[in-house]
Amino acid sequence: MVLDDTYRGAELAPVARVAMVGAGQLARMTHQAAIDYGIALHVLADSPDDPAVSAGAEFTLGHADDAVLLRRLAAHADVMTFDHELVPLDVLRAMTTEGSVIRPGADALALGCDKLFARTVVSGLGDLSIPVPAFVPVSGAPDVAAFAERHGWPVVLKSRSGGYDGRGVVVVDDLPAAERVLAGGGGGDGPRWVVEEFLDITMEFAVLMARSPSGFTATYPPIGTLQVEGICRELTLPIDLPEEVVHRATSWARSILEGFDATGIAAVEYFMTRDGRLLLNEFALRPHNSGHITIEACATSQFHQHLRAVLDWPLGEVGVVRPAATVNLIADTSTMELASRLPLALAVPDVHVHLYQKAPRPGRKVGHVTALADSTGEALDRARVATERFFG
Amino acid sequence: MVLDDTYRGAELAPVARVAMVGAGQLARMTHQAAIDYGIALHVLADSPDDPAVSAGAEFTLGHADDAVLLRRLAAHADVMTFDHELVPLDVLRAMTTEGSVIRPGADALALGCDKLFARTVVSGLGDLSIPVPAFVPVSGAPDVAAFAERHGWPVVLKSRSGGYDGRGVVVVDDLPAAERVLAGGGGGDGPRWVVEEFLDITMEFAVLMARSPSGFTATYPPIGTLQVEGICRELTLPIDLPEEVVHRATSWARSILEGFDATGIAAVEYFMTRDGRLLLNEFALRPHNSGHITIEACATSQFHQHLRAVLDWPLGEVGVVRPAATVNLIADTSTMELASRLPLALAVPDVHVHLYQKAPRPGRKVGHVTALADSTGEALDRARVATERFFG
Repeated sequence: MVLDDTYRGAELAPVARVAMVGAGQLARMTHQAAIDYGIALHVLADSPDDPAVSAGAEFTLGHADDAVLLRRLAAHADVMTFDHELVPLDVLRAMTTEGSVIRPGADALALGCDKLFARTVVSGLGDLSIPVPAFVPVSGAPDVAAFAERHGWPVVLKSRSGGYDGRGVVVVDDLPAAERVLAGGGGGDGPRWVVEEFLDITMEFAVLMARSPSGFTATYPPIGTLQVEGICRELTLPIDLPEEVVHRATSWARSILEGFDATGIAAVEYFMTRDGRLLLNEFALRPHNSGHITIEACATSQFHQHLRAVLDWPLGEVGVVRPAATVNLIADTSTMELASRLPLALAVPDVHVHLYQKAPRPGRKVGHVTALADSTGEALDRARVATERFFG
Repeated sequence: MVLDDTYRGAELAPVARVAMVGAGQLARMTHQAAIDYGIALHVLADSPDDPAVSAGAEFTLGHADDAVLLRRLAAHADVMTFDHELVPLDVLRAMTTEGSVIRPGADALALGCDKLFARTVVSGLGDLSIPVPAFVPVSGAPDVAAFAERHGWPVVLKSRSGGYDGRGVVVVDDLPAAERVLAGGGGGDGPRWVVEEFLDITMEFAVLMARSPSGFTATYPPIGTLQVEGICRELTLPIDLPEEVVHRATSWARSILEGFDATGIAAVEYFMTRDGRLLLNEFALRPHNSGHITIEACATSQFHQHLRAVLDWPLGEVGVVRPAATVNLIADTSTMELASRLPLALAVPDVHVHLYQKAPRPGRKVGHVTALADSTGEALDRARVATERFFG
């Protein structure tokens, strides 16, 4: 398969050809896993500077909303999958009708594209009735005022789509603040924002689950997540959770994947609140930041698992091999320096660094550090120390 | 660095640029490790079909004995290293004088290029006096006859250079058989063959050690190896060995690395004989087949470790995370099929498959399977079962 003018051979045809829409760090790490299996990963990249391209994945340059390119990619692959949700669902639906194999499918992807739709679906439609934070769609400031009257200030405003890493998520303390946010715009048709209760959160965790087209699932033990200003900062595995909580969280995750016939890896994020509620926050039907910890902590990384799932291969072991913690490398200061400081970070015992070859910009994830140890606490200490060494 | 006409960018300059001479499976797996660190690996490949090229490493097409190409590669890299020993030592020595950073250096590489030189050196020259199997260089059949008179038939004939995976290693039962082998040629100047005593081997193992230019070393626990007809078939980690044996084997490995100022990862292979001797067999000053087991079994794979060592970065943890066994996928029958049978192999619990995208040919290693379990015995069972599934 040569979709661009780069010739690169392979003595033996790849075991499978997987097309991935997007070429960020998720595609980069998927490419690393694909090499193990002799899979050719072909990414749709915005730029030859994208992380998966730098890592050597085959690539086609173009945009995810280009229907012609998407069809070309799918035609040359056994399966098409995704490293982000900014995809044209109507095109993907048509392609599926035409015979393309797209996993997860458009109906499942729709959940990831629109937080309002996702919230509405999981909180009350059909067979699913999963508790989520109180929310209403926002057409204007009066909706926010009415919601705050019932739930109190502050409230959280979330963009329906396009938000990630803290972008599109704003905590507002009063109506004037809300008005300023709403004036700033937001994505999607109809109501562009959702308002949500501000929660007193005691714990956050993610359930990572893979599901194959044949209906098999594999669920990783819950991963502790720490978000700061909407950006995932730290992960720990394993974590202490009441068995009953694990059971509910896992069942709900399975309901979503089965309900929408989702395939591939998915991450479902949960809150536990001080008043004792377990609430579903968000979910992503693709490899996810919370799953980065599985590369070292588990027998099968989320990237290997995603490939196995979308190709309908047997799923891999999900047990924890060793306690671990991951800290995201977020370029929140201008003093970050990667090249000269990587060796300093690697001097911390049992630390594993992943750099994405993304230039540091404030608030941007440019890599992550996972440490292994005899306990998650010790692993977290190590990962934090190593992370700090990237900053002057 | 664009040495060929393939443009592939990187938003952020690589953390380091490493040139590797050779583009086989060792380079392929080194590339996977390089991605983690944001290192650009540039390989010198014989063909665009080579395993490291299929995996997406940057590449230049050419031969390892091309002095112009070697200089170009080194000039564009922070360090040059190797995936095989078929390199022109005189050119590398000149390049070092000119300022190129080459690791391991030419003096150490010379050991790997010539079994006779290596044997002679480690068994008696200088401070080293490491027991090796009895051997003499062979100029003709009379040398073999004289040797056999002292040590008995059968004897082992080994090509001085260029032999691997059983090629260039022949057990001969009598003089006519020896004459037939010698008539077949062999590599190198002067005596092209070495004759060696045939050993009653009770155990084989390898000591994998990394050494950095600053002089730090990191030694993996001994890896059990099983050779069949000169081809490494199976690996286990950890293995039971008397502490004193581990101590001697490790000290000898360290003596070699320090004695020749070798840098990077090295594998030293040992025999234990029925009559109680511990003998050094061979060694390789590069990533080695015996180290493949470290990818899953250890916190730091040999490929990560090799990069860290040649870049003089801190070395990584070498402890065993979980008992493991590796079985090489050797295409010894025409009924091997990789693509359709990979999912069957992956159905075996906790099995990890690495395919090199090399077309199956009799006796050729086309991949390996590592299994994890609670014991090496169970891991070996799993790895064998998974391996068998590739054959009809």
